[in-house]
Amino acid sequence: MEKSFTPNWINQAPVPGSFRSIFKYGDPNGFKHPNKKLYEELKNHFQLTDDDFIEKESTGNELVDIRQKPELSNEQINFFIKLCGAENVSAKEYERLKFSTGKTLEEALLLRQGKIEKITDLVVHPRNKKEIAEMVKYCNTEKIPVYVYGGGSSVNLGFYPEKGGITLVLSTHLNKITEFNELNQTVKVQAGMMGPEFEHALNNADKLYHAKHKYTCGHFPQSFEYSSVGGWFVTLGSGQQSSYYGDAGNLVLAVEMISPSGAIITKDYPAMATGPKILDIIKGSEGIFGIIVELTWKIYRYMPENRQYFSFIFPTWQSAVAAAREISQGEFGMPAVFRISDPEETHHGLKLYGIEDTIFDKIMSFRGFKPMQRCLFLGTADGEKNFAKNIKKQVRKICKKHGAMYLTAYPVKKWEPGRYRDPYLREDLMDYGIIIDTLETSVKWDNLHQIHEQCRAYVKSRPDTICMTHASHFYPQGTNLYFIFIMKESDRAAYLKFQRGLIDEIEKSGGSLSHHHGIGRMIKQWMPKHLGDNQVDVLRALKRHFDPNDIMNPGALI
Amino acid sequence: MEKSFTPNWINQAPVPGSFRSIFKYGDPNGFKHPNKKLYEELKNHFQLTDDDFIEKESTGNELVDIRQKPELSNEQINFFIKLCGAENVSAKEYERLKFSTGKTLEEALLLRQGKIEKITDLVVHPRNKKEIAEMVKYCNTEKIPVYVYGGGSSVNLGFYPEKGGITLVLSTHLNKITEFNELNQTVKVQAGMMGPEFEHALNNADKLYHAKHKYTCGHFPQSFEYSSVGGWFVTLGSGQQSSYYGDAGNLVLAVEMISPSGAIITKDYPAMATGPKILDIIKGSEGIFGIIVELTWKIYRYMPENRQYFSFIFPTWQSAVAAAREISQGEFGMPAVFRISDPEETHHGLKLYGIEDTIFDKIMSFRGFKPMQRCLFLGTADGEKNFAKNIKKQVRKICKKHGAMYLTAYPVKKWEPGRYRDPYLREDLMDYGIIIDTLETSVKWDNLHQIHEQCRAYVKSRPDTICMTHASHFYPQGTNLYFIFIMKESDRAAYLKFQRGLIDEIEKSGGSLSHHHGIGRMIKQWMPKHLGDNQVDVLRALKRHFDPNDIMNPGALI
Repeated sequence: MEKSFTPNWINQAPVPGSFRSIFKYGDPNGFKHPNKKLYEELKNHFQLTDDDFIEKESTGNELVDIRQKPELSNEQINFFIKLCGAENVSAKEYERLKFSTGKTLEEALLLRQGKIEKITDLVVHPRNKKEIAEMVKYCNTEKIPVYVYGGGSSVNLGFYPEKGGITLVLSTHLNKITEFNELNQTVKVQAGMMGPEFEHALNNADKLYHAKHKYTCGHFPQSFEYSSVGGWFVTLGSGQQSSYYGDAGNLVLAVEMISPSGAIITKDYPAMATGPKILDIIKGSEGIFGIIVELTWKIYRYMPENRQYFSFIFPTWQSAVAAAREISQGEFGMPAVFRISDPEETHHGLKLYGIEDTIFDKIMSFRGFKPMQRCLFLGTADGEKNFAKNIKKQVRKICKKHGAMYLTAYPVKKWEPGRYRDPYLREDLMDYGIIIDTLETSVKWDNLHQIHEQCRAYVKSRPDTICMTHASHFYPQGTNLYFIFIMKESDRAAYLKFQRGLIDEIEKSGGSLSHHHGIGRMIKQWMPKHLGDNQVDVLRALKRHFDPNDIMNPGALI
Repeated sequence: MEKSFTPNWINQAPVPGSFRSIFKYGDPNGFKHPNKKLYEELKNHFQLTDDDFIEKESTGNELVDIRQKPELSNEQINFFIKLCGAENVSAKEYERLKFSTGKTLEEALLLRQGKIEKITDLVVHPRNKKEIAEMVKYCNTEKIPVYVYGGGSSVNLGFYPEKGGITLVLSTHLNKITEFNELNQTVKVQAGMMGPEFEHALNNADKLYHAKHKYTCGHFPQSFEYSSVGGWFVTLGSGQQSSYYGDAGNLVLAVEMISPSGAIITKDYPAMATGPKILDIIKGSEGIFGIIVELTWKIYRYMPENRQYFSFIFPTWQSAVAAAREISQGEFGMPAVFRISDPEETHHGLKLYGIEDTIFDKIMSFRGFKPMQRCLFLGTADGEKNFAKNIKKQVRKICKKHGAMYLTAYPVKKWEPGRYRDPYLREDLMDYGIIIDTLETSVKWDNLHQIHEQCRAYVKSRPDTICMTHASHFYPQGTNLYFIFIMKESDRAAYLKFQRGLIDEIEKSGGSLSHHHGIGRMIKQWMPKHLGDNQVDVLRALKRHFDPNDIMNPGALI
């Protein structure tokens, strides 16, 4: 009887107007509850019983009931109302909290307790870039800070309105493709367009734009469904197929930015030698120089019919890394999805993707691929048919050489449809006082193992903490490491101490402060040590140039 | 008898100490005289006879005999002598002229007449980066301008010492690979290392560094033999195989730069999301921010055994461009050499590469590929064997679809060995008052034809002017256009007027001011109009930050 117990995972949309409706990830009606295997594993790991999953620790389903007047004068508020229309301006506390909140664990921990810190003074939904230019000008004169809310998926307090001011929501109106250029294989897209709408339009370019072909944007971060094109670019994001398509920074050909020092429309040539590229100077600026209003995005042919799928199991992490390096340096083109999991992630992944206890599992075990040593590799290849097939062929050859067993397309095909859904697990776990969070870093082949070992040792030094790691963005010179940790913890201060320790460890072990999440406010204190003062000074000089009054996302990045 | 006349092309190294020894391109003993066909064509085109090629107009073989004291105090000169050793400092006029001179046509025209303009005050050959740091510090205090001479191949007055000061020659001592990292597939290389030595070391990595494989730098500009690694990077150069290997800016992972505001060593992760990348801010800065002393270069496997060769003839320029676009957007990997010539360049190319009057020529003509309409395509593919073979296969399919005839590997194999030698033609022609020069631009697919037509119309509006164009660096979004023009002209002012008119035309027709030659001093006056003041202001702000006293290559770029 006890065996069949399933926690009463919340399966309803959050109460409208509640804290949960703000911090819950993604679709209010979207859920991904831990499956049986994961649930058993969690109980086992944290020495819990079913009894611990009867009563929820917190749900955050309480209504947001706060009173906090905007720290703006009526005259100022009226300026925005007059400019953008009353229907596009809100001073309501709920709205202001909603558009001040990203997706960090620390925000969720706070909101679950019904607590809030700083919220924005006014939420404005600009209708066009002219209104944005007017607002930036006005805010510069009045010294009103300006934050931009794209999809709200920041995991580092990227738009947290720490100094008050106004928050612009770009997805409400600036969410369209304004130009489709099949000859150049580019589109102009407004910064607030969300991933699914963008990709849908490109996939249907034949119908929507009378194009000869269908297209894809090539950028599929885990936050794809709840992040905006502009956000992808300003944070230097990377998608799950970045090894083939490139990172967001590479996928953008030109941008239009409005800053206090004026508007900038960068040139859209595929290459040029006219000094340092202003586009590059803006890439990754996280809103501190100005507001990206429009982007010229490089599109690719959408050819799912050519896609190749492949999965492997390696005897060890060392062999998986060695094979991944050989593939990345093999000069036969790169896989699109390209992901290797370390032993602990493989252990959980085999459960999550339904491999455990299948025929695969039996063969693996029979062949000596031992649990907590073996490592999973998931891959796909895109592009022209022969090109994609040859990638699969070469990958198989290299993996075999490194002792791997071919697991067919099955595991990666199991992984693919659920790949945007993992964040939904967070709410279920936190309802019972278990937290799941991530940090990530760039590594080179020659320091990958050291960073992996050192950071894992740090995480594992906390008792009963799960630490899963994968590498999922590959380059000939290295890759990234993505750490996922799960622990029993509800105390925000204790968690933050742990998190800071891990950032310290990443930095000390030689990793980058971020591969693709950006810096925001969570990691910025490490920037001078990491880059050196001389380099941070360059960013400061640019900041002074673009935004002398420090009104653009003040406090972020540097 | 007249038929067998050959001009008495100079076939000896320039007189030591002469102006010619300074302006002659490349190897003093290197020559590429116009072949019979080209000579006949030139006579024909410019309505000349053999008589016009009896007496040379100028040779520049006169000795440099100028007196110009350095505008530096003895105390200042002694500082450099004390720091770098007397053997590494020269105030001799010949040396100072030599290291002040690049490879523009306007410099050659001037020197042929024994005239000089500004020359540097002192030539210094630093022995290490510590000495460079000391000098930059001292020069900043003393407000002495600093120019850097890499390989001296600038075609836009990139290091012309317009304000006097000192010129640092990096190739004398800073010319080594300091670290070979096979795991990361990177090398650290000093900025003054020249192309051939760099490539030779990488090709022999198995012997020199006990590497498992041989490697290549992937960057082969026409100036390869007489340009330095640092120069490739600061000017944002592109090599003849850039469509596969990437432009110089993409081939560099990290740099060390010494500027008046301090030293910067950028991070060498393959990707990172820690704000705008300082490396990108330095890319293409042409020495105005500081001196690049060392670079981390991404190397590739050297596998000439896998190289595929292919050549085609297209019925028209339109069909060649359409095929090139389809190849660039085909997602099967990019050819390495990838070059299409317009009808006028094809006309001359078929002569130069020895195709004219061969069996190919007969078949082409028979099949209706008409002179002055037909267009030549030369290509190679590098990388893993199946990958390279598939590129050739897909390219053939696309070219056939666009009406091209396959010309086998022969033309590209004829072109390949002489590809660095074309600049040697210049001296022969100028000896008889004929000049050859180039300008280049980036284009997008949707404005390629307009730019090509408009710029050609401008060049052809000058009577009897040859104008050959090719595209040789391809991206899914566009390519470059490279204009080569030959004319009978010895008057410098008249030539400069023509040249300025063409830069105007490039800009007005929608091309970039440069795809890969950079800006230097020749093109900088167009920068504010081209990029817009707001963008040039960003570069100015960076300049002020790095170099508040304007001592680093003052007057270049902006």
